[in-house]
Amino acid sequence: MPIYQAPLRDYQFVLNELLNIYQRTELKGFDEIDADLGDAILQGVADFTTEVMLPLNGSGDVEGCKLVDGKVIAPKGFADAYQQYVDNGWATLTCDPEYGGQGLPESIGVFATEMKTATNMAFAMYPGLTHGAYAAIHAHGSDALKQKYLEKLVSGEWTGTMNLTESHAGTDLALLRTKAVEAGEGLFAISGEKIFISSGDHDLAENIIHLVLARLPDAPEGVKGISLFAVPKIMVNPDGSLGEANSLCAAALEHKMGIHGNSTCVMNFDAAIGELIGEPHQGLRAMFTMMNQARLGVGVQGLGVSEIAYQNALAYAKDRIQGRGLSGVKDAQQAADPILVHGDVRRMLMAQKSFNEGARALIGQQALWLDEAERHPDADKAKAANKLAALFTPIVKGFITDRGFNACVDAQQVFGGHGYIHEWGMEQFVRDIRIAMLYEGTNGVQALDLVGRKLMGDKGATLMVWSDMVKTLIGENMNNDAMKPYLAGLMDASGDLEKATQFMAVNAAKNPDILGAGSMPYMQILGITVLAWMWTRAAAAALAALESGTEDTAFYEGKLKTAQFYMSYWTVQTRSLRKQIESSSELLTQLEEADFDL
Amino acid sequence: MPIYQAPLRDYQFVLNELLNIYQRTELKGFDEIDADLGDAILQGVADFTTEVMLPLNGSGDVEGCKLVDGKVIAPKGFADAYQQYVDNGWATLTCDPEYGGQGLPESIGVFATEMKTATNMAFAMYPGLTHGAYAAIHAHGSDALKQKYLEKLVSGEWTGTMNLTESHAGTDLALLRTKAVEAGEGLFAISGEKIFISSGDHDLAENIIHLVLARLPDAPEGVKGISLFAVPKIMVNPDGSLGEANSLCAAALEHKMGIHGNSTCVMNFDAAIGELIGEPHQGLRAMFTMMNQARLGVGVQGLGVSEIAYQNALAYAKDRIQGRGLSGVKDAQQAADPILVHGDVRRMLMAQKSFNEGARALIGQQALWLDEAERHPDADKAKAANKLAALFTPIVKGFITDRGFNACVDAQQVFGGHGYIHEWGMEQFVRDIRIAMLYEGTNGVQALDLVGRKLMGDKGATLMVWSDMVKTLIGENMNNDAMKPYLAGLMDASGDLEKATQFMAVNAAKNPDILGAGSMPYMQILGITVLAWMWTRAAAAALAALESGTEDTAFYEGKLKTAQFYMSYWTVQTRSLRKQIESSSELLTQLEEADFDL
Repeated sequence: MPIYQAPLRDYQFVLNELLNIYQRTELKGFDEIDADLGDAILQGVADFTTEVMLPLNGSGDVEGCKLVDGKVIAPKGFADAYQQYVDNGWATLTCDPEYGGQGLPESIGVFATEMKTATNMAFAMYPGLTHGAYAAIHAHGSDALKQKYLEKLVSGEWTGTMNLTESHAGTDLALLRTKAVEAGEGLFAISGEKIFISSGDHDLAENIIHLVLARLPDAPEGVKGISLFAVPKIMVNPDGSLGEANSLCAAALEHKMGIHGNSTCVMNFDAAIGELIGEPHQGLRAMFTMMNQARLGVGVQGLGVSEIAYQNALAYAKDRIQGRGLSGVKDAQQAADPILVHGDVRRMLMAQKSFNEGARALIGQQALWLDEAERHPDADKAKAANKLAALFTPIVKGFITDRGFNACVDAQQVFGGHGYIHEWGMEQFVRDIRIAMLYEGTNGVQALDLVGRKLMGDKGATLMVWSDMVKTLIGENMNNDAMKPYLAGLMDASGDLEKATQFMAVNAAKNPDILGAGSMPYMQILGITVLAWMWTRAAAAALAALESGTEDTAFYEGKLKTAQFYMSYWTVQTRSLRKQIESSSELLTQLEEADFDL
Repeated sequence: MPIYQAPLRDYQFVLNELLNIYQRTELKGFDEIDADLGDAILQGVADFTTEVMLPLNGSGDVEGCKLVDGKVIAPKGFADAYQQYVDNGWATLTCDPEYGGQGLPESIGVFATEMKTATNMAFAMYPGLTHGAYAAIHAHGSDALKQKYLEKLVSGEWTGTMNLTESHAGTDLALLRTKAVEAGEGLFAISGEKIFISSGDHDLAENIIHLVLARLPDAPEGVKGISLFAVPKIMVNPDGSLGEANSLCAAALEHKMGIHGNSTCVMNFDAAIGELIGEPHQGLRAMFTMMNQARLGVGVQGLGVSEIAYQNALAYAKDRIQGRGLSGVKDAQQAADPILVHGDVRRMLMAQKSFNEGARALIGQQALWLDEAERHPDADKAKAANKLAALFTPIVKGFITDRGFNACVDAQQVFGGHGYIHEWGMEQFVRDIRIAMLYEGTNGVQALDLVGRKLMGDKGATLMVWSDMVKTLIGENMNNDAMKPYLAGLMDASGDLEKATQFMAVNAAKNPDILGAGSMPYMQILGITVLAWMWTRAAAAALAALESGTEDTAFYEGKLKTAQFYMSYWTVQTRSLRKQIESSSELLTQLEEADFDL
C-alpha cells in the first residue's frame, strides 16, 4: 500500500515564511489564528487523512461504486470514514461561522484539501462538491434557502453536487436543455438528464442537495437564459426534518478510467421540485463567481496526487536495488545499488519535487489572494487581489493538473514494470488524476480563458500588475550575489513571457484564431514563469533563514538545491514554447478540414 | 466503438516513395516482391484487423483474462479470432520459408504489426511474443530444436513466451535466481518463479513454448552465467505429437493498468523439463541479438495505438459541436461549431498527426536497416546497416513510446469528459499503451543504452555516419527554394544535437554519472532530429511527386503541410532539451540522498 507523509514542514514554510499569513491581521478573521493553531489544524487533518482515508484508497478503486435498486452504494468503509469526517468537524474548516463553520482562511484550508486529495482523491470529492454547493447557496441564495440548507452542508451531514453537464453540452452550456417550470409557492419543477455528476448519489449522508442548471420557459437563448436551482434528494420540511423523496434518481453510474470510489452519475430529474438560487437567468453568473475557488480545488488535486506519487517513487528508488552507478559501485554491501544512484531516476524525481513544491507555493499564494478578495477591509485591495486570482485561475487549474499528471506518470515510471501493477498503487494515481485535466473546464478551455478573458479581456492590465511585482522582486535581490542563480532563470522566463504576450496581442488583432492556436504553449510559459517567481521568493526566504542562524539547515539547503534545479530544468523550457507559438500558431489556423485526414 | 482505417496510402508512400523497397532487389528475397504484392498483403491484414480484431478490443479490456483451475482463459472471442489468424496464415509473413514462412521483408511486416497493435494491442501480443520465441530458436537453437519447434511457431499453432523478469530482477538480470540442472539425455530441469510473463498461459493454442533465462550450477556470477532454455507447456514427443504436461504453471495473473486482454502471468517452474538454446552461459547474448527487433516491435506499439487514437480524436473533433470559433461562426447551420475550429484542438491533432507520420517513416527505415543487416549480400553493408539499426533502437523504442503515449493522452483530451469514460475507448488506449514505456527495458534504460553503449561505445562513430547522411540530404536540397522551410528545422535540430553530443562526450570523461543524468533529454533531441530527417525526405518526395504531375495532389500537399507543422512545432523543442542537459545534469549527480526528502 502506498505510504504518505503529510508535507507539514512545507506548509509551515509556505504559510509562515513565504506568505506570512499569521501577520496578515488586517484581513477579517486572520487575527483569530496564529501559527500554533494553523499547525494544529493541519496536523489533525494529516492524522485523519493518513489513518482513515489512505487505507481506503486502493480498495475503493478496486471495488468502485454500485447502483443497487436505484441507490448508489460507495465502496466499503467510505460511509464509516465519512461519518468520522463529519464527527471530527473536518467539513467545517473554512465555512462561515454563522452556519457552524470555523471561518478559517482558504490559505490554510487549501492544504487540508491537498492532504485529502493525496490520500484518497475519490473520497475527497464527496466533501469537495459539498463545499461547492455550500459556496453557491452562501453567495447567491435567499435567506430562507440559507437557513434551510447551509448548516447541514457546513457540518457535512448533507452533501451537495453540481449538475451542469448534459451529454451534448459540456463546455458550451448555451446548448443545455434541462427545463424548469413554476410549480407554485415559489417552487419549480425541474426535468432533464445530466451526466458526469460527481457524488451524484451515495450512502454517505441522509440527504443530497443538487445544484442544477436549467432553463425557465421565458428564458432568453444561450447562456443568458440559464437559471440555478437547489434540488434536494429528499424534500426538507419547514421545520428542517426530512420529508418525501424528490422525483430524481441516479439513472446510471459512469464507467470511468479512475476515481472509481466516487459515484459519477447520470442523473434524471423528472419534474423534481427545486428552488431558485439567485435571480432568474443569472445561473451561469452565479456559477462563475465560484469558479476561481472551484478551479483552485482542481489544481490542488494535481498537486496532492503528484505529491503522494512522488513520495512513493522516492521510497521505491531508495529501496529497489538494480544495476550499478555509472561512476562505479555505490553500495558494495548489496548485490546492486539502489536505483536512486541513476541519473535519469534522479531527473524524474527532481522534476516532480521541484514542480510539487513550486506548485504548493503558488497554490498558497492563490488561496491568499482569494482570502484578500473576500476579507480585505480596503475594497480596492480586495478587488486587486481578486483580479490576480482570476488571472492565475487557469494556471492553477490547467498548468498544475497538466504537469501534475506528467509528474505522476514519471513517478510510475520510476517503478519500472511494477508501476503498471495495481498492487503498488502508482497506476491508480495516474488514472485518478487524469480527470483533473478534463473536468471543471478542460485544460484547453483554461488556456482559452487565460488568453481571451484574462489577458485580452483587460488588455494585459492585470498581467502588467503582476509583472511589476516580478520586476520589484528582481530589483530587490539584484545586488545579492547569493540570489543570482535564481534570478537568472526567472528573468529568462519572464523575457519569453513578455515576447509571447506581445506576439499574442499583435496577432490577435489580425487573426483572432491565433489566440486559440497559441493558447496552450502560452499557458505553459506563464505557468513556468509564475512558479519561477514563487521559487525565487522561496530561495530568498531560505537564504534569509540560513543567515539568521536557523538550526534547521538541512531543510533550507534542500530548498535552495531544489530551487536551483527548478531554474536549470524548468525555466529553460519557455523559449521553445514561445517558438512554438511564433512558428506554428498561424499555420494551425490556415489548415482546411481535409488537411487533418491521412 | 472506436473506428479504424488502416493507413494504407501512407504505407505505400513510406515503402514505395520514401524507402523504394521494391527497387532493392539486391537484398535476398526482395526480388520476389513488388508493390502489388506488398499492397495486397497489407490490404489483407487491414481487413482482418479491422473486421476481426478491432471488435474484440473493448470487450477484451472489460472482461480480461481469468485463471480457472490453474488454466488461463482469454477473453471471449480471442480463441476464435486467433484460430482465424492462424488459418489465414497471418502468423507466417516474415518467417523463414524453410519452416513454412513467407519470407517477407521486415519493412512490410512491421506495418502489419502496426495495424494489429492499433486494433487490439492485447491480442497482438500473443503472436508478437511467439515471433520473439521463433526468432530466438531460429537464430540460436540446434537443428534438432528447430525441427521440433519452428514449424508450429511459424504457423502459430503453438505460441511462445519470453521468461526473463523475476520480482527482484528486472533491468538487472545479473540478479536472477531461476536454476537449471542437468536431467539426463541433454535435458535440463528448470526451477524458479518468473513475473510479468506476457501471454504466459491461455486457451488460444494447444501448446506454449516458454523461453526461460536460468542459471546452471557451474555458472559464473552475474550476466555471464545466464543460459536460455526452451521449456514447453506440453512435452513434445520425438514424432512431434504432444505428450505429458510439463511441471510448470501460471501461478497468478497480474492486475494491470491495461492490456487486460493479454494474460500477463506469474509463472512457476518446478523442475520443468527444457532444452538449452545455444551455448551454456550465453543466454543473455542470445537475447541481445534479438533485441533490435523486439524493441522495434514495442516502438510500433507506440505508433499503432497513437494512430488509432488520432483517428478517433479527429472524427470526434469533426462531429462534436461546442462553442463558436474565435473569429466568428463557422457553421451557421448548427447550434455550435465543430470543435475542430478551435486552435488548441487543432494543435493537439496536428501534434499527433505529425508525430505519427514521422514515426511511421522512421519505423519503415529502421525495419529496412534490419532487412539490410540480414539480407544484404555485401557483408560490410549488412554490418553498417546493423550498426545504424542498433543506434536507433533506443529511439524507436524509447522516443516513439514516450511521444506515442503523450499523443494518446492528447487524443483523449480532445474528447473532454467523454475521454474519461470507457465507452468511447480513448481511456483504454492510454492505459494500454502506458506499458510500452515500461517493458522491454524502461525508456530510462533505453536512454542509458543510447548514451552509453550506442554513443560512447563506439566513440560516436555510427552517429557520425548518420550525421553525414543528414548533411548529404541538406546539401542535395540546399538550392531548392521549395525545400527551405523543411531544411531550416532539420538544421536547427541537428545543431542542438551536435552541441549536446559534444557536451556529453566532454563531461562523461570527467563525471560518468552526467551521462545518465542527461540521457533522457538527449534521447529526445535525437528522436526529434531523426524524425526531422524523415520529414525532410518526405517533403522532398512529396515535392517530387507534385512536380511529376501526380493526380493525388491532396495527399502530397497534406504531407507538405504536416511536414511544415512538424518543423515549426517539434524541432523548436531541441534547444530547451539541450539547455536542460547543460544546466541540470551535473547538479543532479551532486545531490545527496537526503536532498530528495522534503
